[in-house]
Amino acid sequence: MMVPAAIELGVELRVLAEADGMSAAIAADRVGDYTDTATVLDFAKTVDVVTFDHEHVPQDVLRALVDAGVAVRPGPDALRYAQDKLLMRERLSELGLPVPDWARVVAPAELDAFIAEHGGAAVVKTPRGGYDGKGVRVVRSAAEVSEWFTAAAEDGGQGALLVEELVDFRRELAQLVARRPSGEVAAWPLVETVQVGGVCSEVIAPAPKSAGRLADVAADVAVAIADGLGVTGVLAVELFETVDDRVLVNELALRPHNSGHWSMDGATTGQFEQHLRAVLDLPLGGTGTHRPWSVMVNILGGPEEGQLVDRYAEAMANHPTAKVHNYGKQPRPGRKVGHVTAVGDDLDDVVYEARSAAAVFQD
Amino acid sequence: MMVPAAIELGVELRVLAEADGMSAAIAADRVGDYTDTATVLDFAKTVDVVTFDHEHVPQDVLRALVDAGVAVRPGPDALRYAQDKLLMRERLSELGLPVPDWARVVAPAELDAFIAEHGGAAVVKTPRGGYDGKGVRVVRSAAEVSEWFTAAAEDGGQGALLVEELVDFRRELAQLVARRPSGEVAAWPLVETVQVGGVCSEVIAPAPKSAGRLADVAADVAVAIADGLGVTGVLAVELFETVDDRVLVNELALRPHNSGHWSMDGATTGQFEQHLRAVLDLPLGGTGTHRPWSVMVNILGGPEEGQLVDRYAEAMANHPTAKVHNYGKQPRPGRKVGHVTAVGDDLDDVVYEARSAAAVFQD
Repeated sequence: MMVPAAIELGVELRVLAEADGMSAAIAADRVGDYTDTATVLDFAKTVDVVTFDHEHVPQDVLRALVDAGVAVRPGPDALRYAQDKLLMRERLSELGLPVPDWARVVAPAELDAFIAEHGGAAVVKTPRGGYDGKGVRVVRSAAEVSEWFTAAAEDGGQGALLVEELVDFRRELAQLVARRPSGEVAAWPLVETVQVGGVCSEVIAPAPKSAGRLADVAADVAVAIADGLGVTGVLAVELFETVDDRVLVNELALRPHNSGHWSMDGATTGQFEQHLRAVLDLPLGGTGTHRPWSVMVNILGGPEEGQLVDRYAEAMANHPTAKVHNYGKQPRPGRKVGHVTAVGDDLDDVVYEARSAAAVFQD
Repeated sequence: MMVPAAIELGVELRVLAEADGMSAAIAADRVGDYTDTATVLDFAKTVDVVTFDHEHVPQDVLRALVDAGVAVRPGPDALRYAQDKLLMRERLSELGLPVPDWARVVAPAELDAFIAEHGGAAVVKTPRGGYDGKGVRVVRSAAEVSEWFTAAAEDGGQGALLVEELVDFRRELAQLVARRPSGEVAAWPLVETVQVGGVCSEVIAPAPKSAGRLADVAADVAVAIADGLGVTGVLAVELFETVDDRVLVNELALRPHNSGHWSMDGATTGQFEQHLRAVLDLPLGGTGTHRPWSVMVNILGGPEEGQLVDRYAEAMANHPTAKVHNYGKQPRPGRKVGHVTAVGDDLDDVVYEARSAAAVFQD
């Protein structure tokens, strides 16, 4: 999704893709292993700035690029907080930002103690490698994640897991901002994200009933994180709005993020264009919205048989104002294979339009 | 500009480019001569539908594709009216559509007679190959285009030129529509186009003071042309609004057109997405606007030295809501190298924003 933004701006985008035929390979100049320093260094020689569409490039590869004089944006110092949730919690706590109660636990007894202190349940997370609900589990006893302690110990780290209080939240929100190396930061409206089974299902922009204090607090928190971590590019801050009206930071992503896809059709500057502007240290674009409401619904899984394009005729005939985005991935259960965005003046209408258009692509 | 739309829809776009390094070659699968039947036929074997970004593919090449069973959209029967202005005038007259007085002239005496009957001046056009003011001349005597008669005679045609009355117009308008093979037609709002030296300088959408009869007439005319000519894809109808409140058809383009670039940032469905939907015979997208006004200003020529990107920092810092489109072409005097679009609620503000942002790229 960064390619269209690059084309419009006349920015030449070169892609190091993991494998041939991946969606990223639509503009792939090279296929190679992003965990191999020599491969990435060699690729980096052909460009002015390196950025990423996920956080899993190893720190030693990133640092080798920096040592070789490559502009890496976001840089390894910022990216490690998206790569390691324990480091992220430590750093956000240092910055005085609102986070759930948390602890670093290396032994089942420590975890059981935390659970006992927090009402008999807690959320355990593997510090590294989790996404879309993977590596996250609600437990009432350390015995439920005993294999995670074993795996963490074997992972070369110090065998630590992250445990967090089970936050009693009213809803989940996300605040996207972009920051350029010179320090300029731009924030989109705060959005509400609806999760189903740990996976984002839909996003409403702006979050209903968020004007005023809530929007201000969320923007302040995200800007403080962007500045405090020295982020370059798009930063997505996933938040809990608690039942007692607090805002707590849940997760971070240092890249264009699912919670910002609505901006491609609903805002003056979409998140992929903004990410490019930020990593190229260009002035950031306006983050206002075209219409009062934008709703994005993920296409999860897609049709049981066939491809998304097989449903285009039905979806487009019945939903002429919905914007369909097809990632070109083979449908399979649970996989994000596309999304649909609708915009308009009446929230109920916009939600209905986006959901019903997306539903055409699901069995 | 069709590539980003194709990527979002997951449509695989293959490009036959004239030469390596052209902007089209950003996604070029093949470089070759579009006037060579064997080259185009061979390329066409790799795709489901063939379309064009200009009207100059020869009729014999187009007909060879059709004969080989290739879906050519728009097809040669429709395209020839965009390729030959005499044919276009004849056909529109047959359809009873409003056109300036015109005649087919093969001799200077015929032209002088037409001029004498039309107030002492007329517009002479070469039927084929003209664009952006080329091949169009206002004359008071046939002697002013004597070399055109000679060239037309040598062109293998019957040596004919097109002569038209010099229309006393208030302003120029353009009506864009899209039509799919099954017959569905969608019309964007009527726009005003401002020409400088025969080249489009800016476009205002919708055309000021066009609501009601004017918009209805323009849309009716464009739909009648799309249906009458069997157009597939985007059709741009350039119109004169005369001082006596008539609407006359000036020129046609059977492709996404400069007068529709505003739609990429200002309408629910941009013209490149709509063209793809139309030529793929998919239901057409909504043509409503995000905001009351959209203004597109062409970047003509660009900076005397350097590239458009050298001016990005200044343009983006001062005009954060303007959308900059860079065609990746080498700047040279008079060349369209990009455009800027602004949208908003107040026409004066939007015009100012678009013009001043575009001005940053001009010396």
